[in-house]
Amino acid sequence: MAKRAYPLAKVYGLLEPGPVVLVATQHRGRANVMPMSWYTMMEFEPPLVGCVVSNRDYSFAALRSTKECVIAIPTVQIAAQVVGCGNTTGRKLDKFARFGLTPLPASRVSAPLVAECYANLECRLVDARMAQKYNFFVLQVLKAWIDPARKRPRTIHHMGRGVFMVAGRTLRLPSRMK
Amino acid sequence: MAKRAYPLAKVYGLLEPGPVVLVATQHRGRANVMPMSWYTMMEFEPPLVGCVVSNRDYSFAALRSTKECVIAIPTVQIAAQVVGCGNTTGRKLDKFARFGLTPLPASRVSAPLVAECYANLECRLVDARMAQKYNFFVLQVLKAWIDPARKRPRTIHHMGRGVFMVAGRTLRLPSRMK
Repeated sequence: MAKRAYPLAKVYGLLEPGPVVLVATQHRGRANVMPMSWYTMMEFEPPLVGCVVSNRDYSFAALRSTKECVIAIPTVQIAAQVVGCGNTTGRKLDKFARFGLTPLPASRVSAPLVAECYANLECRLVDARMAQKYNFFVLQVLKAWIDPARKRPRTIHHMGRGVFMVAGRTLRLPSRMK
Repeated sequence: MAKRAYPLAKVYGLLEPGPVVLVATQHRGRANVMPMSWYTMMEFEPPLVGCVVSNRDYSFAALRSTKECVIAIPTVQIAAQVVGCGNTTGRKLDKFARFGLTPLPASRVSAPLVAECYANLECRLVDARMAQKYNFFVLQVLKAWIDPARKRPRTIHHMGRGVFMVAGRTLRLPSRMK
């Protein structure tokens, strides 16, 4: 990934379409990564992202303890690796090594960037009040990176049970919405 | 819309890919409808949906007061109407009439279904504790409807500033994820 800093004010446009993302964490000397689809933008700037990370997931404790993660956005080229990360648990496995993903140092958090993803968002946990009841966390994006060489990233969107919609054509309409 | 009841356990598969949806409300004798992209699944069953409805939107008061809404999922065929609903406010306009959308009676809520959408989810507001700070509402889906004739609905996914990604091909991978 050739990475370039991406304006925080534009981050919502990466997540609002709803692609599957990877959540990377670093906890007790080990990096881990899991796919996630249950998230939403909550504020434009600073960008806030609300997300559900199940308390059955190994990443739950890492996120809660370290209060940091990276949200990385994969494309269809690595869809099989993304599914592999969902089929396995970081308790027993180094998923980066197993699935040929490359952790890169981030600038603001100890969790790693994922080199094979076209965008990476360094995040800090800012509100865990809904974690107990809903496994819901509010993250603030501190720093965003994008691969400027990837003009039309074909993101994947989970429809359940391993069926994914691959991003198709784009359409421009005269909208006054941000 | 030829509508058929849709299992609540499968609702997550409609929303998890992240399409733009319409939120329909009924308040003080008036129906209204607005587009929304900032939402996430929060639980499989009963299906819980977390969503951000800005307190600048006319729908905010309707949702907060009536504690009911319908989430309707449009396809690219009515993308221009969806954008129209976002460019205008229900304070001054009957958007259903203006944009040629047809309100239909729902079964569990007073908010209307949107006939032109391929799926409609009748929702009740179950948690507004994050409404003050984040404009964030937790909805429970009480009843779901789908148009069984629409086999490959081309949903639209907002990338910001009126640019939409239209759902492309589907891909099936050997996933153990729900």
